[in-house]
Amino acid sequence: MEDRDYMALALSLAERGVGWASPNPMVGAVIVKDGKIIGQGWHEKCGQPHAERNALAACNQPPQGATMYVTLEPCCHYGRQPPCTQAVLEAGIRRVVVGSGDPNPLVAGKGLAILRQAGVEVTEHVLETECEKLNEVFFHYIRTKRPYVVMKYAMTLDGKIAAHTGDSKWVTGEEARNHVQKLRHRYTGIMVGVGTVLADDPLLTCRIPGGRNPVRILCDTHLHTPLTARVVTTARQVPTLLATCCTDPEKRAAYEAMGCQVLSGPERDGHVDLNWLMEELGRREIDSILLEGGGTLNWAALEQGIVQKVLAYIAPKLAGGKEAKTPVEGTGIDRMARAIRLEHSSITRIGEDFLIESEVAHCVHGDC
Amino acid sequence: MEDRDYMALALSLAERGVGWASPNPMVGAVIVKDGKIIGQGWHEKCGQPHAERNALAACNQPPQGATMYVTLEPCCHYGRQPPCTQAVLEAGIRRVVVGSGDPNPLVAGKGLAILRQAGVEVTEHVLETECEKLNEVFFHYIRTKRPYVVMKYAMTLDGKIAAHTGDSKWVTGEEARNHVQKLRHRYTGIMVGVGTVLADDPLLTCRIPGGRNPVRILCDTHLHTPLTARVVTTARQVPTLLATCCTDPEKRAAYEAMGCQVLSGPERDGHVDLNWLMEELGRREIDSILLEGGGTLNWAALEQGIVQKVLAYIAPKLAGGKEAKTPVEGTGIDRMARAIRLEHSSITRIGEDFLIESEVAHCVHGDC
Repeated sequence: MEDRDYMALALSLAERGVGWASPNPMVGAVIVKDGKIIGQGWHEKCGQPHAERNALAACNQPPQGATMYVTLEPCCHYGRQPPCTQAVLEAGIRRVVVGSGDPNPLVAGKGLAILRQAGVEVTEHVLETECEKLNEVFFHYIRTKRPYVVMKYAMTLDGKIAAHTGDSKWVTGEEARNHVQKLRHRYTGIMVGVGTVLADDPLLTCRIPGGRNPVRILCDTHLHTPLTARVVTTARQVPTLLATCCTDPEKRAAYEAMGCQVLSGPERDGHVDLNWLMEELGRREIDSILLEGGGTLNWAALEQGIVQKVLAYIAPKLAGGKEAKTPVEGTGIDRMARAIRLEHSSITRIGEDFLIESEVAHCVHGDC
Repeated sequence: MEDRDYMALALSLAERGVGWASPNPMVGAVIVKDGKIIGQGWHEKCGQPHAERNALAACNQPPQGATMYVTLEPCCHYGRQPPCTQAVLEAGIRRVVVGSGDPNPLVAGKGLAILRQAGVEVTEHVLETECEKLNEVFFHYIRTKRPYVVMKYAMTLDGKIAAHTGDSKWVTGEEARNHVQKLRHRYTGIMVGVGTVLADDPLLTCRIPGGRNPVRILCDTHLHTPLTARVVTTARQVPTLLATCCTDPEKRAAYEAMGCQVLSGPERDGHVDLNWLMEELGRREIDSILLEGGGTLNWAALEQGIVQKVLAYIAPKLAGGKEAKTPVEGTGIDRMARAIRLEHSSITRIGEDFLIESEVAHCVHGDC
């Protein structure tokens, strides 16, 4: 096995922290001595030990003189946990192989410098792209203090998210719908507009047994969400947050009495100002949002530049319908040359359907 | 080299007849003796010799005792050309390896039976699926006497074929647009609705140097096509056919004077009856049509069950727009469970874009 192989193993360990490590990064570590893996671990949950300490604790023989493979540069500061550099040095690790560097410019490279000064051999950039991709949420959040927003929709091959009657059960097959449940576990928040609540009365929970429910965020400019909506009546079990421009204390109090949080903020083009909302959510440690909006909210989110990634599930079927809803509506661009560009697209088959995954180009902080 | 390898070569030869062999099948043949390829050929153009005779004529040594690989069962009847079985026997071929059988149930197997009776060893079904796929147009046309219809459109990842203003230059990149030119060469006819003519005034020709122009078919229920439209003014250079429900002899005469053919037929749901039109076009030896319709014609074509294949070019960009046009409009299905199902989907990257290619399921002869 080569460095890349051990790092690939560390990556797959890191991935096990998905949904639980947030707002910390997912990190995996593998310890190798005399060509044998003697310990491995990952950052299992925010508030619990980091991957390096877990791997050291799991060693089946003394780690002195071993090599540690770790997907992210070890931390060197006291946060929720003591610094990992210290643990690595105390264990007598002789060589550290690192995937991606710390994205925080204030500490980047410092962890590695400490290790090198202590005589540890350090190798960097092994499977760096893969390690960075795994933590795209963390890298974005640590740099911007705002959530990483993933717009997800399911449409027919002719671009419809529902029949002209509004019926949308189901656009995609079972495997694709199960895949979406994994996204609800992966991302910290889930966001919809009031239109979706009125039309579908969704629960927006994660149906995977043992999965994590995302914080539910409703964009509701005028507080039109019914108090009988399932997202409201279950707000004591699953956190629910209403973002609104309404400041009427009585109206707000009714939702608060049901257990919802209500955030009142500025309006922009007739909608809740989404840049304001992202700042607010970032402050609440919501590092990522799965946007399951209808066409109106999706367009507002794109226009206001808050979307980082697009996940489009495409079903091999045709619905037709001039009046049928499409994934992104609103006003739209006026010239095709001004369309919102996507990059780094990839495509996978999920059961009978396709998933196209793309990043929004040049669209950080609204400066598209 | 094994049988499959020689057949793969024969397939690639057959493909060279694309656009020219129609309404005949594309066929390739390779002749092998003592492990060496001694001759190869393909059906170059309708009216010219078949692949078998071309391969025999190209042999660089006597073909006695050789093996012939041919993508389609050799014909045994006098059509535009004398039967190929006769040529195979006269040449003293000892073994014939065949890809797909003759799709015409009246003659299927007869060519092979003649060869076997004469003592030739026959192997069937080598790369059969690939050989059938190459001639999906021919197989459909010979069975139904109606054209194989390929619906093609280019859309953004949010299902728009134009901005809300109508601007559509360009949805896809240059490579995808060049790819469409190859389709215009490949299929015998190209069909659009009058809406497309009024909006874009397209030429609908094939821009590949040395390419073949498709017959232009305009669905124009009420004969609203301007006499100044480019498809009309160039009708003497490139065949143009107007399908209409209008029977006014004066109106028809104006187009005929410009060199257009006018076909008057029955109306169905406010449009030209497309099943009637397909029968008419089939009679005129138009074995295939590239449907570059707008949403209205596309929906009519799907609803009337005349579409066999869908080619959806998808650009990695988002346009938004509640009023922006989508590839299939009209009324549409009323429940998602009744969506028109597609099967055998495949996906390829073309430059920066994606192409999803699917067959319409259970949609032969309108009995969807």
